[in-house]
Amino acid sequence: MSGVIARPRSPMTDALRGIQAPVMDRLERVVEEMHRMITSDLAMVEQVSAHLLGMRGKMFRPTLLLLASDLEGKPEPRAVTLAAVIELMHLATLVHDDSVDHSATRRGLPTVNSMFSHQVSVIMGDFLYSRALRALVTVRDFDVLRVITDVSSELSMGEMRQLAAIDALSFGEDEYFLLIRAKTASLLSAACESGALCGAPRFRDALARYGDRLGMAFQIIDDILDYTEDESVTGKPSGNDLREHKVTLPLIAVLPALSAAARRRVDQLFSDDQPSDEAIQDVMGIVAEAGGIDAARRRGEQFAIEAEDALAAVPPSPARAALVDAIAYVTDRRW
Amino acid sequence: MSGVIARPRSPMTDALRGIQAPVMDRLERVVEEMHRMITSDLAMVEQVSAHLLGMRGKMFRPTLLLLASDLEGKPEPRAVTLAAVIELMHLATLVHDDSVDHSATRRGLPTVNSMFSHQVSVIMGDFLYSRALRALVTVRDFDVLRVITDVSSELSMGEMRQLAAIDALSFGEDEYFLLIRAKTASLLSAACESGALCGAPRFRDALARYGDRLGMAFQIIDDILDYTEDESVTGKPSGNDLREHKVTLPLIAVLPALSAAARRRVDQLFSDDQPSDEAIQDVMGIVAEAGGIDAARRRGEQFAIEAEDALAAVPPSPARAALVDAIAYVTDRRW
Repeated sequence: MSGVIARPRSPMTDALRGIQAPVMDRLERVVEEMHRMITSDLAMVEQVSAHLLGMRGKMFRPTLLLLASDLEGKPEPRAVTLAAVIELMHLATLVHDDSVDHSATRRGLPTVNSMFSHQVSVIMGDFLYSRALRALVTVRDFDVLRVITDVSSELSMGEMRQLAAIDALSFGEDEYFLLIRAKTASLLSAACESGALCGAPRFRDALARYGDRLGMAFQIIDDILDYTEDESVTGKPSGNDLREHKVTLPLIAVLPALSAAARRRVDQLFSDDQPSDEAIQDVMGIVAEAGGIDAARRRGEQFAIEAEDALAAVPPSPARAALVDAIAYVTDRRW
Repeated sequence: MSGVIARPRSPMTDALRGIQAPVMDRLERVVEEMHRMITSDLAMVEQVSAHLLGMRGKMFRPTLLLLASDLEGKPEPRAVTLAAVIELMHLATLVHDDSVDHSATRRGLPTVNSMFSHQVSVIMGDFLYSRALRALVTVRDFDVLRVITDVSSELSMGEMRQLAAIDALSFGEDEYFLLIRAKTASLLSAACESGALCGAPRFRDALARYGDRLGMAFQIIDDILDYTEDESVTGKPSGNDLREHKVTLPLIAVLPALSAAARRRVDQLFSDDQPSDEAIQDVMGIVAEAGGIDAARRRGEQFAIEAEDALAAVPPSPARAALVDAIAYVTDRRW
């Protein structure tokens, strides 16, 4: 298992371990399949691939997919291939994201764009994505293909919405939900739905909904952590979203009710190309004091409840219990 | 037809017009399908899409695909969808190419990266590609899916090979062929093969071979034009490949036989980050004088002959005649 979880042991990785327990052996095979899918005869590709697979994260999407496929105790072997496809697509998205954001690190390691170049990251993203699709076709299932190609279109729309959300203080809750649904929840939903299609097809819609709500909660918590936790916990400096002029739920929740003076300090930060650490800390304080963190957390918890509700019709099983635990894992997390 | 061909009338556009004649009406529907495939609710996406569709080229790949589907006189309607998919994939590749190369213009118009931003071009490339795939799945044919996803993987390998080919004076003919097969011939081959799958499946292999050889000739001529024609003809400054330190066939063909003095001038250009126009003209002269252009042209003509040979078993028809004309169009072209 040490190969799958790169992070040091903590209560959270113990929780993840518990969630992954029912599918642990298959998760190792997902990693092997990922390696196989991106083999090539080009030294540069091999080098970048090794770096990327070395930095791989918690395999959360493959875990969800495998659990979903196991809800009736008869997971199909192709779920392993599909889990590798989903994780490769996720990696491809991260590589392009980092290139678009000019990010220097990801999960504590240098990004492809910083370690190699912008060029290499554009091409490697395309490469990972195309190899994922090639493997996807071998699954020979039009329903699965439809789910995955729909989500890939959704992910790129999410990226576009993200660009449009920069410097957009007029951005409202509806637009924010549209954005995080496209950039995060859609892929978790697709992982759960396509997993269900490989062993528990009658729960397809329920699992799509579960994944969507879990993904919404996941991203809201992620956006809250940017306000509450520092680099040692999240792997990126706190206040990073504000630094990049990204408007997220804690700010959106309080913006209409801010005093004129507080609003001026927010406007000031968003009109400054390189806001100072002080200005960022100041706005973080304004948001927290006005109740933005709490409001966002309540919204996240609502989505968590809806995720659990989505599983209502699914009979008890170790896989179902793990999916329920995954909700607590997402909402309680400090990473 | 004016909607499909943007260029001013010339002997070459007349030739293209002749090649497109058997599929003209369906070609207009391809353009409509492309528009439909990339509709979105985001203003920025619409704006970039309009720019891209406005700069669209000669629709050469859709033309080949539709002709291939028509070789037995019973083209399937889905060939139109597939032709739109292929052209969108091609556009997506161009958008990422331009971003990787930092190109300022394409077909005489500003590129997405220069007109919008690097970010927008990475995301728009992903968007076009994902929409193409979503449409591809609606064709519901695993053979076609296999051909298209294989080629998309090949295209990204081609991009990687291109990166590896920069500053690589050790690059030989074999590596060059591997590169142009991946970056150009593979897509023409996939267009012809998948076209055949939609109306003339028994010619599938023949058409894959025809497209491959045509593509090889196409790229070799393209690389020759960079040595022989100026911006008014090709839409990009001559000597551009040398300026970007790209090693192509005319240079590869003469490199081993150059005098020590000439070789030094070539090495000098490749060690200069911003070679002067004079240095570029000088090396272009060296290559021409040593017979590099002629050698490359002979190689291109061999591929053209092999392309025609590949059609040997195909019975006469207007579509077949147009495919033969396409070979002359590619090898004679001055664009």
